[in-house]
Amino acid sequence: MMGEVVALSGGVGGAKLALGLARVLDAAQLAVIVNTGDDFNHLGLAISPDLDTLVYTLAGLADPVQGWGRRDETWTFMTALEQLGGDTWFRLGDADLAMHVERTRRLAAGETLSVVTDRLRQRLGIAARILPMSNDPVRTRLKTDAGWLDFQDYFVRRRCTPQVRQLAYLGADTARPLPEVMTSLSSGDLRAVIICPSNPFLSIEPILAIPAIRAALSDCSAPVIAVSPVIGDQAVKGPTIKMMHELGLKCGAAEVARRYADLLDIFVVDEVDAATAVPAGIEVISAPTLMTSLEDRERLARLVLAAADRAAGRRAGSPYPAGVS
Amino acid sequence: MMGEVVALSGGVGGAKLALGLARVLDAAQLAVIVNTGDDFNHLGLAISPDLDTLVYTLAGLADPVQGWGRRDETWTFMTALEQLGGDTWFRLGDADLAMHVERTRRLAAGETLSVVTDRLRQRLGIAARILPMSNDPVRTRLKTDAGWLDFQDYFVRRRCTPQVRQLAYLGADTARPLPEVMTSLSSGDLRAVIICPSNPFLSIEPILAIPAIRAALSDCSAPVIAVSPVIGDQAVKGPTIKMMHELGLKCGAAEVARRYADLLDIFVVDEVDAATAVPAGIEVISAPTLMTSLEDRERLARLVLAAADRAAGRRAGSPYPAGVS
Repeated sequence: MMGEVVALSGGVGGAKLALGLARVLDAAQLAVIVNTGDDFNHLGLAISPDLDTLVYTLAGLADPVQGWGRRDETWTFMTALEQLGGDTWFRLGDADLAMHVERTRRLAAGETLSVVTDRLRQRLGIAARILPMSNDPVRTRLKTDAGWLDFQDYFVRRRCTPQVRQLAYLGADTARPLPEVMTSLSSGDLRAVIICPSNPFLSIEPILAIPAIRAALSDCSAPVIAVSPVIGDQAVKGPTIKMMHELGLKCGAAEVARRYADLLDIFVVDEVDAATAVPAGIEVISAPTLMTSLEDRERLARLVLAAADRAAGRRAGSPYPAGVS
Repeated sequence: MMGEVVALSGGVGGAKLALGLARVLDAAQLAVIVNTGDDFNHLGLAISPDLDTLVYTLAGLADPVQGWGRRDETWTFMTALEQLGGDTWFRLGDADLAMHVERTRRLAAGETLSVVTDRLRQRLGIAARILPMSNDPVRTRLKTDAGWLDFQDYFVRRRCTPQVRQLAYLGADTARPLPEVMTSLSSGDLRAVIICPSNPFLSIEPILAIPAIRAALSDCSAPVIAVSPVIGDQAVKGPTIKMMHELGLKCGAAEVARRYADLLDIFVVDEVDAATAVPAGIEVISAPTLMTSLEDRERLARLVLAAADRAAGRRAGSPYPAGVS
């Protein structure tokens, strides 16, 4: 099966499916567009949490328990920083620090975020391309009962406890999409676009907030498939359901489908959500979506690709016959 | 015994005597003026090797084997940096990194190097004051058979192998001495100035290259005592003898005394150098100067202070009687 697969991803949940895709595809045919709305500068270092989670996951370096950060990590730096009275609310592992120091050095030397990311993923032997959505800064902010908060202040320092009233993606309306993102999405050789099971508010919508990216997804020639990040009334990880509640939205998979409605061909929900009502014109597929093992990731990746190929096969002139890749 | 003791120090060798002084004095009466000619920016971090060696040594955190860096250090960062293709010729331990990251952050926020150093040493419970010679950058460079080299390029990357022809302390002639340095050196309450057994070319002369500091030492009311960093025809550590040879100088303690001749009242040499010829007017004291144990450091500190106090006692009106403190 030929053609490029493009995935949109935030951090941990999205990276699980991206890893599955990288393993069942020729990984060189996978490009992952990654949220940079969580990026921030901390202790003078340029930190890109979602890019790092993708890099670590696809390189086999991720912490298998927490899903972010590195396996076999040590914490000597944080202990010493605390001893010096430094800022310790954002935990940086010793190995993880190398990524931030090296990225910061390269950015200061004039490399773009996308070039830095590309060189580092190649260095780590990752065949799939990892594309920051933009080289221009986009910053997710949250209006809460504690006022407007920066993303990491809300997410890490305050552990998602403030009540969220509104989100903003500062800079998104003027951020230039990464040229490689636009090339991939407008390619006639595009096989499928997969919106990974990431938090819609914090991970996917910052990407979609760049107008040209949303338009390119809407116009693209390939099927667009989203996998729900919620199962029943639970988010697999993170505050998705809590935020739906605080924002006065319906809590569940249906709300995810509604938010992406203008883009979606297929919506994959968990088996417990088989009865999810979605906007007209969207096909619902139910399947086990909880990815615990590596096999789970691969199985879901195959299912998503097969569904995309079937949808493509229903379109006139598609080169992709129905069937599992 | 009252009055402030001021020490001049580079890294490892100087820090040994500084620790001895801090232990035999009321440490709040000790101020150490530290060479910053080795400072450099590496991986985007502001690194001050000699300041750090003093801080770690006086806080009891120094690696007891190598004398620089921290005890119980881990090296996860360097391993990860190497994996990413980063620059690894200058080894930064995980705990040591906290110092560089925190200093860099504070400098970027507008604190001076002396304020950063003072806050960190207080945080670590160090009673002695640690004073960078200047908040203005001074950079030691070496003209060698491999061309002009930055200090760390010569010292760490090339392991002192190039032949040294000439030294330069860039910025020293216009660097403003730290005001606290000038206050201490001009104080009527100054008890002694001790030039620690550090490399003259790389550690002490960058300090003396700031004209106001050299002048203040020359004019100060207290005895000035240097401890030789060479024993026989060996430097205790580092390239002192090698550099003397390459610079066409006599190799040994006598050359150290000659270099400081206009400043010195007393020159302390090792017992093997008891016959060292020094310029007229300088008293030579021989004693065991190799500091292996903590007791060695304290014993040499007591000997130096006693010699200073005897010299002061010979001056009219001195408040300091002869004898060990």
